Amino acid sequence: MVIGSSSLRKATYTYGNIVGRKAFKINVPSEAHVRAADYIGIVSGRTADKFADTGLTPVRSALVDAPYVVEFPLVLECRLLDMFEIGLHTQFVGEILDVKAEESVLGEKGLPDIEKVRPILFDPEIRTYHGVGRLLGSAYSIGKTVR
Amino acid sequence: MVIGSSSLRKATYTYGNIVGRKAFKINVPSEAHVRAADYIGIVSGRTADKFADTGLTPVRSALVDAPYVVEFPLVLECRLLDMFEIGLHTQFVGEILDVKAEESVLGEKGLPDIEKVRPILFDPEIRTYHGVGRLLGSAYSIGKTVR
Repeated sequence: MVIGSSSLRKATYTYGNIVGRKAFKINVPSEAHVRAADYIGIVSGRTADKFADTGLTPVRSALVDAPYVVEFPLVLECRLLDMFEIGLHTQFVGEILDVKAEESVLGEKGLPDIEKVRPILFDPEIRTYHGVGRLLGSAYSIGKTVR
Repeated sequence: MVIGSSSLRKATYTYGNIVGRKAFKINVPSEAHVRAADYIGIVSGRTADKFADTGLTPVRSALVDAPYVVEFPLVLECRLLDMFEIGLHTQFVGEILDVKAEESVLGEKGLPDIEKVRPILFDPEIRTYHGVGRLLGSAYSIGKTVR
């Protein structure tokens, strides 16, 4: 079983959707979608049609009762397994039932490559978004020369 | 109360330390420490002296019974509040009792700035480390022009 996890405040509209449907999707926007992604975080689904406003396209899949964004390069479809209270947030833990990735973001081995997905980094203190920077090295490898 | 969180596999040496001491520190290495950070992830504290091998300096603080790395630009000292099982990992949730940040990584408002901390991104699928990339925009702001 492969695990996906995401956290939200209880006051959000999405919180009720996830608890009610026992499912969630992790939609990973790319750098190109940074304005739309910020808008999605600012407004609530209670009062705005986020898809209509941003021009993004919702798609329902047979697997999990929650929409995904067809323009985003990477989507994880999860079945809710567990919920934990962590300070102001509730952390949702799910079993990943499917991963939908655009062909263009896959690396040599057929796995999503962070340099191609180009996800958005969020600094909650300074309140900025950043892209992914330069390659620093291979994990479980560059450290072998230390000793 | 401000919350810090980190997750580990149960088999790790650090897992036992955290459970025993009911405390943990989140040591955030910078790009410059990527080789040492990889080494720290590869070897176990059961069989290696990670500080001696990497040349990093452990410091004990009065606040929390766990060492921090003096060379790393940002350290969160946490008192263990809760533990959750999430797949293969245990997630530790703590109250942040102190934040130690080098002067040089603080932004205009005295908060740690991701562009100055320069933390390391880890892609667990492709197994690469990356730096933080270019500024994409201000959060809770650039999305306001959508509607």
